[in-house]
Amino acid sequence: MSPRFDPGREASLLESTVASEVLFTGHFFDVARDRIAQVDSSLHTREYIRHPGAAAIIPIDAQGRVLIERQYRYAPRAVFTEFPAGKRDPGESTIDTAVRELAEETGHCAAEWAFLTRIYPAIGFADERMDIWICRGLEPVEQRLDSGERLQLHWLEVEALLALCLTHQIPDVKTHIGTLWLAQMYRGQIPWPRFQPAQAWREHPPA
Amino acid sequence: MSPRFDPGREASLLESTVASEVLFTGHFFDVARDRIAQVDSSLHTREYIRHPGAAAIIPIDAQGRVLIERQYRYAPRAVFTEFPAGKRDPGESTIDTAVRELAEETGHCAAEWAFLTRIYPAIGFADERMDIWICRGLEPVEQRLDSGERLQLHWLEVEALLALCLTHQIPDVKTHIGTLWLAQMYRGQIPWPRFQPAQAWREHPPA
Repeated sequence: MSPRFDPGREASLLESTVASEVLFTGHFFDVARDRIAQVDSSLHTREYIRHPGAAAIIPIDAQGRVLIERQYRYAPRAVFTEFPAGKRDPGESTIDTAVRELAEETGHCAAEWAFLTRIYPAIGFADERMDIWICRGLEPVEQRLDSGERLQLHWLEVEALLALCLTHQIPDVKTHIGTLWLAQMYRGQIPWPRFQPAQAWREHPPA
Repeated sequence: MSPRFDPGREASLLESTVASEVLFTGHFFDVARDRIAQVDSSLHTREYIRHPGAAAIIPIDAQGRVLIERQYRYAPRAVFTEFPAGKRDPGESTIDTAVRELAEETGHCAAEWAFLTRIYPAIGFADERMDIWICRGLEPVEQRLDSGERLQLHWLEVEALLALCLTHQIPDVKTHIGTLWLAQMYRGQIPWPRFQPAQAWREHPPA
């Protein structure tokens, strides 16, 4: 039933870099414009964002509730319901980003971590990759928000979060995807991923 | 059970624009840098992408299979499994984008359309909004790919697509989200949205 995509037949889809130029260097993303060649030797231009990558975190407490943030996002000009998340610092693996952001944004550390899945939010114009982690065994640590970072924290039942999702109130993709997976795990429809201490993920990151 | 987020308490999250500057004008997105004020009057800088918005399309055939594309995405440098999608042309509503892209990319028109949900793929750095549409009652029309657009089409069972999703082979967010919704609708776990001709959606777009 699982479809096979033939790498031989798909070789005709590939594009190779002929030249690359950085057009804009920002605080956390750059804009590049590349000349590329397709397999028929035709040349085309691709403009895109270079992003450092990110991690999202689904913190679960002893009662099975999850921690979400309400945060104003300036680009889309609205307050969103979202799981904690943040950009990778240089050289950081996403488990380290997740551990750091969980502490900074929510004031928690976690005993155990599980890798949920990896998403590419904007394949049409950005190279951003985001790993989604689940954690449990939470303990309080000092919260350290960045300058200009304002958010409000709420503990929600997974069924309540799913209800928001299915009524179009979770347009943020990491939170939407995490919620749909989580609801199925809570209902026993898909298995839970493996939990282990952050250190084990540092030694053997997800593929 | 549904959580209430209090607009009064959340007023402290809002940010207002003090000044705005376009730093880069690209072929389909711009980069802006704004000075913003928070409610405590502190000033901060926000750099972000201005994107025209987009529509994604889930075409369903008479046997209940869905149409996906295999396409090389230059920014993340990989071939992705994805539902057809495209950017809005100026002044276009997303149902028109969906009708147009379905024809251009796949060579089909559809008798009936349903609004699945709306996502914001990259709230941290872009204003892009994407509406996800489902369509059925497909008929062939002429395919008209853009210059430099190469893709391969496959009809898949929804269960096969779900299996790819749950084994981390659908990192594209529109396709990941569409698949998780669709699998639940096929299994009767959530209701189907309302189908109607594209013209009815033009007259009364989703909120």
